[in-house]
Amino acid sequence: MSNAELIVQKKVFEFGTYTTVLGDEIPNLRFGYETFGTLNEAKDNAIFVPHFFSGSSHAAGKYSAEDEEPGYWDALIGPGKTIDTHRFFVIGVDSLNNINAFNDKVCTTGPLSVNPATGKPWGMAFPDLTTVDLAHVQKRLLASLGIEQLYGAIGASGGSIQSMQMAATYPESVTRVISVVPPGIRLSEYTAAMIEMWGEPIKVDAAWRGGDYYESEFPDKGLASSLRITTLNGLGFGMAAKLFPIDTLRQDNAKGSRHLQSESLFVEYLHDYAMQRKAGIDPNSLLKMVDTYQTFDIRDDLDKIQAKMLFIVCDDDLVFHVQDSLLGYEALEASQVEASLFRFKSDYGHLGAVMDTDKFAPVIADFFA
Amino acid sequence: MSNAELIVQKKVFEFGTYTTVLGDEIPNLRFGYETFGTLNEAKDNAIFVPHFFSGSSHAAGKYSAEDEEPGYWDALIGPGKTIDTHRFFVIGVDSLNNINAFNDKVCTTGPLSVNPATGKPWGMAFPDLTTVDLAHVQKRLLASLGIEQLYGAIGASGGSIQSMQMAATYPESVTRVISVVPPGIRLSEYTAAMIEMWGEPIKVDAAWRGGDYYESEFPDKGLASSLRITTLNGLGFGMAAKLFPIDTLRQDNAKGSRHLQSESLFVEYLHDYAMQRKAGIDPNSLLKMVDTYQTFDIRDDLDKIQAKMLFIVCDDDLVFHVQDSLLGYEALEASQVEASLFRFKSDYGHLGAVMDTDKFAPVIADFFA
Repeated sequence: MSNAELIVQKKVFEFGTYTTVLGDEIPNLRFGYETFGTLNEAKDNAIFVPHFFSGSSHAAGKYSAEDEEPGYWDALIGPGKTIDTHRFFVIGVDSLNNINAFNDKVCTTGPLSVNPATGKPWGMAFPDLTTVDLAHVQKRLLASLGIEQLYGAIGASGGSIQSMQMAATYPESVTRVISVVPPGIRLSEYTAAMIEMWGEPIKVDAAWRGGDYYESEFPDKGLASSLRITTLNGLGFGMAAKLFPIDTLRQDNAKGSRHLQSESLFVEYLHDYAMQRKAGIDPNSLLKMVDTYQTFDIRDDLDKIQAKMLFIVCDDDLVFHVQDSLLGYEALEASQVEASLFRFKSDYGHLGAVMDTDKFAPVIADFFA
Repeated sequence: MSNAELIVQKKVFEFGTYTTVLGDEIPNLRFGYETFGTLNEAKDNAIFVPHFFSGSSHAAGKYSAEDEEPGYWDALIGPGKTIDTHRFFVIGVDSLNNINAFNDKVCTTGPLSVNPATGKPWGMAFPDLTTVDLAHVQKRLLASLGIEQLYGAIGASGGSIQSMQMAATYPESVTRVISVVPPGIRLSEYTAAMIEMWGEPIKVDAAWRGGDYYESEFPDKGLASSLRITTLNGLGFGMAAKLFPIDTLRQDNAKGSRHLQSESLFVEYLHDYAMQRKAGIDPNSLLKMVDTYQTFDIRDDLDKIQAKMLFIVCDDDLVFHVQDSLLGYEALEASQVEASLFRFKSDYGHLGAVMDTDKFAPVIADFFA
């Protein structure tokens, strides 16, 4: 059965009005989710898989047999795989304010959603969300499925933030948390500022108009530029060296070619990649999601956490630098949380969390055994 | 005498037409320089100090007693200081295509210079420069001063690139090279792509117009945004933590403040800083200088180098990451170059090269003894 194709379906969870931590009301809240495997009668075999910054609920499987690409963690999740869907009931969610708001495979509530008060998209007036808000609405989904306590939660990058936030906000509802390439247990000042920089080009694009572009020109250039910065940030030194054959170019220069690096290499690759991804991303959502990540800080919650936690840290991570993740791990060790640590190296840097799963899959299997 | 104010004067070096490595002609080439101390009769006490990305020839001293700030390495260079101007004749240069082209204390030839063929500024049509071009024109300045062989060359960051390039292109003319926070002996693919990202917001700004803005609106927003990215990149984790009191803000949030981090903290500081610096920077020059740095690669020149070399590496450097500088140092060790290494830590990260000079001043004194 392990080679069987896992066909999944997007479902939608909705409830009326949600009031955010900062006191704003979001009417008609809805977001997508996918489930893999079967919830057992005791409802104690559920594993929650929130997603990274640009991800979605589509953690594994295909929507149809014709799909070219499976979900981002298909290597880990499926029948007979590390997170075995014969045994576990796996739940992927589209986060509130998922940044791929224009992608028809994603269902979320965010700046692109219609504000009933105006009949138009919220834009940047969409309420500010903290990472606690993400946990609140996800907890409601779990409750609606009858799940009181998760067997585990696991996420990469921003997904690790959401997994940890769930364990901090609803301590009794999570027994095991795996944080893959986590930022530690809060966003450090440097990292918070760094992800702030991801949005800079969007704000510079005149077409952005403070977020009011849904009926005018799309801030295409700003978004593509932001995604180039974000993409490079996600890569490691090794992958950059493979992707950008700088030496070949230097040889061309020596032969009299007029192209310096910037004209032909980095931008070309990063541009292509950014363009592929751009199709579904709403720039306002990207900016708002940066704000949300910046609020992550569970230092004051460590005493409450009941889950045991595993940190899987990439030494070559240039988004959530290893210094920060190790500081966070030390804080776990100094608290009453039962914590363990696994480190791996990856040419893919931060993206190793998705591209190099073989390097840490056995550790996940052990932790979820 | 060690407390005496060192008063310096900007001088200008010019010669007719320079033909670049890539075969373009730059007429009326001129650039500024400053000298500190006195050239001895043997002309063998000269130390060459090219500057970092946003720097200038103003390495030490003041232009007048009323100046608020001295040159960037005033802590190191002056009468009785580490690089003692009683003993040494120190030469700072404004690089070709210095990015502070609008600063009246800087003299350079670059995109803002008038192209005699059109009677208008070159803009992005200004010829592409390699780091070898910088060495070529600087060598001509040294020759005009009668200096055949430098006692030493020292520079921070981009200044280390220019120092090493001089030793690689004119091996017989340099005896000692100190590279402070160097990129190694070439720009790695990752770093080349990363500095490429510095220019992204400029290109997104509609006012940039492909570089044709000298008679229209200045791409103010794009430049400020680029400088925010660059500035953050230059800082280390420690300094970011000091500058951005994220915890204070999180408390404000808990009290119901509507401001998430991005609104009030990072951007505020980085914006102020960017605005201070922006006064003199020409966005086209910035883009072109990124291109130039990307060409740096002296791997094939190591066998020719006659200078002994000292690498001063900052472990907290997030521009020229320590992995790259150590790889470069290993390459020196594997070659016939006499090389030594000193490592330091700094909350300022890359900027520690200027802000934390106390940490490596004695090593410089020894090397130049």
